[in-house]
Amino acid sequence: MPHFDMQVYDLIRRKRDRGRLSTQEIQTLVSAYVAGKVPEYQMAAMLMAICIRGMTDEETSALTLALMNSGDVFDLSGIPGPKVDKHSTGGVGDKVSLILAPLAAACGVIVPMVSGRALGHTGGTLDKLEAIPGFKTDLSSTQFARNVAKVGLCIMGPTKRMCPADKKLYALRDVTATVDSISLIAASVMAKKLAEGIDSLVLDVKTGSGAFMPRAAQARSLARQMIAIGARLGKKVVAVVTEMSEPLGLAVGNAIEVVEAIEALKGNWTSDLEEVTLALGEEMLVLAGIASGPEQARRLLLRAVDNGAGLEKFRQMVKAQGGEPRVLEDYTLLPQPRHRAEVKAGSGGFLRRIDAWQVGRLGMRLGLGRSELTSPVDPSAGFLFSKKVGDQVARGEVVAEVLGGEETRVREAAAELSGLLVVGAASPRRRGMVLARLRPRQVQVRN
Amino acid sequence: MPHFDMQVYDLIRRKRDRGRLSTQEIQTLVSAYVAGKVPEYQMAAMLMAICIRGMTDEETSALTLALMNSGDVFDLSGIPGPKVDKHSTGGVGDKVSLILAPLAAACGVIVPMVSGRALGHTGGTLDKLEAIPGFKTDLSSTQFARNVAKVGLCIMGPTKRMCPADKKLYALRDVTATVDSISLIAASVMAKKLAEGIDSLVLDVKTGSGAFMPRAAQARSLARQMIAIGARLGKKVVAVVTEMSEPLGLAVGNAIEVVEAIEALKGNWTSDLEEVTLALGEEMLVLAGIASGPEQARRLLLRAVDNGAGLEKFRQMVKAQGGEPRVLEDYTLLPQPRHRAEVKAGSGGFLRRIDAWQVGRLGMRLGLGRSELTSPVDPSAGFLFSKKVGDQVARGEVVAEVLGGEETRVREAAAELSGLLVVGAASPRRRGMVLARLRPRQVQVRN
Repeated sequence: MPHFDMQVYDLIRRKRDRGRLSTQEIQTLVSAYVAGKVPEYQMAAMLMAICIRGMTDEETSALTLALMNSGDVFDLSGIPGPKVDKHSTGGVGDKVSLILAPLAAACGVIVPMVSGRALGHTGGTLDKLEAIPGFKTDLSSTQFARNVAKVGLCIMGPTKRMCPADKKLYALRDVTATVDSISLIAASVMAKKLAEGIDSLVLDVKTGSGAFMPRAAQARSLARQMIAIGARLGKKVVAVVTEMSEPLGLAVGNAIEVVEAIEALKGNWTSDLEEVTLALGEEMLVLAGIASGPEQARRLLLRAVDNGAGLEKFRQMVKAQGGEPRVLEDYTLLPQPRHRAEVKAGSGGFLRRIDAWQVGRLGMRLGLGRSELTSPVDPSAGFLFSKKVGDQVARGEVVAEVLGGEETRVREAAAELSGLLVVGAASPRRRGMVLARLRPRQVQVRN
Repeated sequence: MPHFDMQVYDLIRRKRDRGRLSTQEIQTLVSAYVAGKVPEYQMAAMLMAICIRGMTDEETSALTLALMNSGDVFDLSGIPGPKVDKHSTGGVGDKVSLILAPLAAACGVIVPMVSGRALGHTGGTLDKLEAIPGFKTDLSSTQFARNVAKVGLCIMGPTKRMCPADKKLYALRDVTATVDSISLIAASVMAKKLAEGIDSLVLDVKTGSGAFMPRAAQARSLARQMIAIGARLGKKVVAVVTEMSEPLGLAVGNAIEVVEAIEALKGNWTSDLEEVTLALGEEMLVLAGIASGPEQARRLLLRAVDNGAGLEKFRQMVKAQGGEPRVLEDYTLLPQPRHRAEVKAGSGGFLRRIDAWQVGRLGMRLGLGRSELTSPVDPSAGFLFSKKVGDQVARGEVVAEVLGGEETRVREAAAELSGLLVVGAASPRRRGMVLARLRPRQVQVRN
């Protein structure tokens, strides 16, 4: 135990005993940890104490700032226009960023989006975009700023020098059962988002079986904490709590979600995908000051779909990031699955459940995400549904197709997916996709 | 994070969420930790979760067993007679073991006592005994058993192969603010005691300013947990909760406490020291089946003082462990202080407080214990009181003497001690030294 440090010891004990840490103490702790001056075992004990005792908004904000300032913070102040990003807490079939970022940019919002990869059962925006031949997500901060200025949007992965404290801390949380602390999640997400150089942020806080926070109360608490952090750090943050019980839209995968996103930008989208995308877009345009209210924002967004301005922004982004822009017209330029298997309804009736979590878990084994950091994804793999929950199906009718590069995996996934579908005599009760909108000062609009 | 192990992760998460660990899980966790297969940061997170969530008696017993079985467990079954030990949670001026072990042995109890060194502000039985020229406390387990068989008692330090899991775990607790968990303390103490090969155990659970658990409720909770562990592991355990607000007896130090212990065995002791020693001895003799009740036990113990049998046992122990037995008659053979300083009462009245914790802290700086593991103790140093709380003092009357090998330290300690003494007009209310006796099955006798 070489690094024993009485001060860190005192901080651990105070948090253990329900005490509070000052902003300065949190800053010093994080700096010392990144510098290797606080041993992993002391930080592990601190994380567990935080996980159980929680943190105040002031503490969470201080942690956010400390994580953010541990690395590069982009300065986009030289780019004129309102910089607004959207962040999702992660779901299954969540291709909203691919549609919304170009649509918002087409409406005049500057969208500097640093996104992530597939995590657990959820998909990753970067993995999806990388299905486009040539598309680069590992840009430098200079390239990022240049693209944002030129195109009005850029979606890339975090640079190595962004939030190193968060990376180190996350790796430790991952092995000490301290990942699912709402305070730690809130600080981690907000640090990465604020490092982008944004003015304001719209959060898509997902709830339901396919979300990381299945319970709505937890999702609301996370949303509330991130809004509070934003308020303390001078950034406007709005959260939209959305449903994530069945996969969003029809496609779950990488290349096939790119196709679905392009189709959406062409005006062909399922109502659930449209509802979530527009709700988030409304908040972005209002935060940007481009629309005075949600109704006006919705009209602007729908116009950018109708007149093809959103699709054009997507094309510009693809070109600017080295991707093949012809994929917008010719989907065969995307990775094609070598194997397909149909999934048919075992009985007739109403489709009552397609469990997002179960589909996500099945997707991991199909190669949509990574079981280890180094394992490659299968960009051609995925699930393509032809029915949504609530649809009527006839016995033997095709409900979904499973795609992928490995025949056995595809066949096994199809068999398993078949077992997951729940068909019943009665139509399921439907609720809207947007459960709540949470804005600063605790003003809350229920949908 | 090389050692990530899904099973350990699950155990941490379960304890974090108030779940229980099975006996088998605790056993496996401790074995894997000692084998270096569980990284320190995972164990640190687990310890913090245990510290905050607590453990059931079943879990604490399982941990005790796992810690005990990580190393050598002495088998004294070949030695006839009842093997009973006494353990104190630590205090200031606590020389009870030096008096009680020989007295109990003189009455026929077999006393295999593995004891400890000074810790923090409290003294250590081994440090005191080592003030006797030649006295050895680092015996092998074979020597220990031989001495126990021959003399009826032996007091030594833990061997390197006793409870290695406890040593490793304690070092981690020490730097992660997880030392003061009652469950972890109970398991740690009981593991070490049960490894001695005893049949039953009397605990001196101290409470008051000079104890590690100043609050009586905590002390009772610790006592209750240790009794419960004993009950589950088939050992009779009795706890006596005793007062530790002022130093026990008149001497606080190493050589001078040996003198006070020898004097006690000769029948010269203060009433507080006598009261604690006899209460603990009564329980030992009853557990050993040598006395049918406390009254008979007390008569036997007092007889062993009066007829010198206790002193004789002490002499035999000193000889058997290589010490100079002539110290029993000639105290000048013990380390003598080169410097002395008197502490006088600043005003006349009743001595109202001599705070044990403050005296203990002062003692650390005087060299009674160690600030680091390697720093030597000053066996000649200490505080020798001529008054106890409740005594009347005249202004300028000597209340204590400070002794030691370093003049500056002695002078400074005398000045500080003078400031700690509280003298008032009214006599303080006195309460008995024995606050409670706790026995298995929740039977409790109040004093």
